[in-house]
Amino acid sequence: MIQVLPLNSATEEKNISFSLGELVAGLRELLPDDGVLLEEEDTRPYECDGLSAYRQLPMIVVLPSTVEQVQEVMQLCHKLGVPVVARGSGTGLSGGALPHPQGVVLSLAKLKNILEIDPAARTARVEPGVRNLAVSEAAAQYGLYYAPDPSSQIACTIGGNIAENSGGVHCLKYGLTVHNVLKLKVITQQGDMITIGSDALYSPGYDLLALMIGSEGMLGVVVEVTVNLLPIPETTGVLLAAFDDVEKAGIAVGEIIAAGIIPAGLEMMDGFAIQAAEEFVQAGYPIDAAAILLCEVDGTRQEVEEQIRLVREELLACGATEVRQAEDELQRQLFWKGRKSAFPAVGRLSPDYYCMDGTIPRHRLPEVLKGIAEMADEYGLRVANVFHAGDGNMHPLILYDANKPGELEKTEELGGRILELCVEVGGTITGEHGVGIEKINQMCVQFSPAELAQFRAVKAAFDPDGLLNPGKGVPTPRRCSEYRTLHKGHD
Amino acid sequence: MIQVLPLNSATEEKNISFSLGELVAGLRELLPDDGVLLEEEDTRPYECDGLSAYRQLPMIVVLPSTVEQVQEVMQLCHKLGVPVVARGSGTGLSGGALPHPQGVVLSLAKLKNILEIDPAARTARVEPGVRNLAVSEAAAQYGLYYAPDPSSQIACTIGGNIAENSGGVHCLKYGLTVHNVLKLKVITQQGDMITIGSDALYSPGYDLLALMIGSEGMLGVVVEVTVNLLPIPETTGVLLAAFDDVEKAGIAVGEIIAAGIIPAGLEMMDGFAIQAAEEFVQAGYPIDAAAILLCEVDGTRQEVEEQIRLVREELLACGATEVRQAEDELQRQLFWKGRKSAFPAVGRLSPDYYCMDGTIPRHRLPEVLKGIAEMADEYGLRVANVFHAGDGNMHPLILYDANKPGELEKTEELGGRILELCVEVGGTITGEHGVGIEKINQMCVQFSPAELAQFRAVKAAFDPDGLLNPGKGVPTPRRCSEYRTLHKGHD
Repeated sequence: MIQVLPLNSATEEKNISFSLGELVAGLRELLPDDGVLLEEEDTRPYECDGLSAYRQLPMIVVLPSTVEQVQEVMQLCHKLGVPVVARGSGTGLSGGALPHPQGVVLSLAKLKNILEIDPAARTARVEPGVRNLAVSEAAAQYGLYYAPDPSSQIACTIGGNIAENSGGVHCLKYGLTVHNVLKLKVITQQGDMITIGSDALYSPGYDLLALMIGSEGMLGVVVEVTVNLLPIPETTGVLLAAFDDVEKAGIAVGEIIAAGIIPAGLEMMDGFAIQAAEEFVQAGYPIDAAAILLCEVDGTRQEVEEQIRLVREELLACGATEVRQAEDELQRQLFWKGRKSAFPAVGRLSPDYYCMDGTIPRHRLPEVLKGIAEMADEYGLRVANVFHAGDGNMHPLILYDANKPGELEKTEELGGRILELCVEVGGTITGEHGVGIEKINQMCVQFSPAELAQFRAVKAAFDPDGLLNPGKGVPTPRRCSEYRTLHKGHD
Repeated sequence: MIQVLPLNSATEEKNISFSLGELVAGLRELLPDDGVLLEEEDTRPYECDGLSAYRQLPMIVVLPSTVEQVQEVMQLCHKLGVPVVARGSGTGLSGGALPHPQGVVLSLAKLKNILEIDPAARTARVEPGVRNLAVSEAAAQYGLYYAPDPSSQIACTIGGNIAENSGGVHCLKYGLTVHNVLKLKVITQQGDMITIGSDALYSPGYDLLALMIGSEGMLGVVVEVTVNLLPIPETTGVLLAAFDDVEKAGIAVGEIIAAGIIPAGLEMMDGFAIQAAEEFVQAGYPIDAAAILLCEVDGTRQEVEEQIRLVREELLACGATEVRQAEDELQRQLFWKGRKSAFPAVGRLSPDYYCMDGTIPRHRLPEVLKGIAEMADEYGLRVANVFHAGDGNMHPLILYDANKPGELEKTEELGGRILELCVEVGGTITGEHGVGIEKINQMCVQFSPAELAQFRAVKAAFDPDGLLNPGKGVPTPRRCSEYRTLHKGHD
């Protein structure tokens, strides 16, 4: 068994030194009393995000309620040299919002105004603390919606979506956050306000928009977002197909896409995940299947009918033992309920579970599933597989018990090896959850030293003092050299 | 009349010093004899790109024929401190490939292998010197094509398309180059090879892919490109609509898009451009119209029929005096021939012409056209208007005579003021031709000092010594402060 470099190792540490008294006094001048949290009972809720295995009690939490206050807080932290960790609603799964022990947690939760919906331009201009689903709710009166739909969409914020470049079950057809944002207003680490992107198709100068999206709060603090809206599709159709073999299901995914269909969603679950979901929500899944595919298409009635026909043909040609179409909206929602409940459903079977997030080329799916099963056996842990099959984004769920000594560490190690298997077959260590603190070691595997050096230079171009979300996303050279040394022993 | 800061002013100069003898000897070691051009008769063809008003005889032109040679040339230039200007086929329209008087022109023309077409993944992996159209030609056997289609697509290279983030008449529906590229291999200024992007939907770490695309050779030299391919649409339909008023045509554009149709192309020409094109190629255009719209839709036969019906309704509702549908492929091509010949057609009426490239919010079109006409009168110059109406990308063509003393300067000044009018109404100074040397002054108008400072910091993160295409794209603070001073006198 390999030794794993701890995520919170000293290899990321910087010299940080400022007067806490001066900071608190400065913040109290800028913000109302309830905008500066110092007491443990107030700051405790901010100790982690959705990656709850990692916790760090914040030193200070600030809750500005205007853009000006955000800018002033940033200017103060710049002047004093204080680390800043921006935070949305804390649903992130890679620890991107884990507090810094000597830093300020900057919550954007109070910036939650929908500033403008422009139905002609099909855009919405919102503050970063607006919830993902709230954008679609506000746009619905114009027949429009915001396409990216992470499973946390009721709670997660647009600002957090930008930080992690969130996806969702519909990103195969409609793209990730990066494909649906037009313009950002950003407060830099120095406290300047800059506009990135434009209302037009194109913006001159270097394209910093995609760079900012997915940068996990390490390049600036987003205070205003203009997103693209889409017309709500006239109708949708969903097929559920059962397979007696995971490989056949994997082949069917490729064939559907090769047939020229881009489903709105194309999801796969393995036998373990099917059984867990069925026990939990009674979605009507075939519990003896080795895998199921859920395929949703949308568009006009004509388009949907035609696509459903084609998808059904492909599924049967690839050996599906059963293909069912949702007969009405109720059944459609039931089909999806099973998929959307898969994480908590599997979670019921174990005190704790750890959701991984890697991508692979679609055709490597069977061998990767086999590899995961073998490694799970080796570590004595159970793994359920649920994934966005269409875009090769896997979410293996590792079941463990944090109360058993060493089991969390074993789980993390297995998780790390699963990600490295993804890289080996030509995939990536994250599909939509970000790197955060969780995958920082695997960045050393995904990228070459020259590539990581380029990332660090770009980071320094925005944040020369390294004060924005320190220790996340991009590993130091020292971490990678230590990790490579440890890893070598394993090869 | 305002005074204009010359584009080749000393405000961009850096201290450059190296031994020319050492450089030439080094290059001769790395490249075959015909890969290093020094004589004026050989280097003269590289003195300008499509913006031929600016010329600079190159000191040296190198023509590597392998990626390794490119890397070695970059390593040598890094070691000696030599400026490098990368070049595709020189069709760019903003002077992005204008040679540096003390630098090397690095032509990628010999790297023209199509390395792989993967019909299942729908991707093509090509070298940067491959011509745009050659990608679609190679993909045609699989029923696929590469969507971005700049009007120079017979000649322009994929590497050049990446440098300028090129568009084309179909970018309203299919996006610019940035929306159609998955992965790049890049040689950095330091001579390292890095991979940017991935074959998957997502790549971890900072998203440098969009940053590299459109960066005009200022951040690195692209040596391999993986592009996305699309299935060739089953069919296409084209409508030509005539209007007695430009404003009505502008409104029709908005209404078509508001109706939920995304045309593959939606182009407008004004009366002057119509007459010039008709005289030149006899496309059958209504020569007494104040404006025409060309609207192309594509998809399945059913989709195209339905969309043609809807577009026709919108056009008539907006007051089109005539709507014609291309009856066959021949007529379709004739409709487009007029549009595609508009630049040379207008060019026939004048010794020289200058093609502008700005974007505006669609609904500001009538007032911008009026403003352009007023300014043209003021300068005593004629302007024809041709544009990608759907995405608000205008191409005013200014007619002038370079042999008349002062007329080029007057033309550039008018061009600059047109771009500044675009910025005033919420648009941008370039839609698809890039900034290059041409629009470097207008960058001072488009962006704030903090935004420009951020661009410069990003540039330095890739090229700390400022040796990649110096003086292009991003103005120095000194240039902007001089330009703002001159400009103030005009307000």
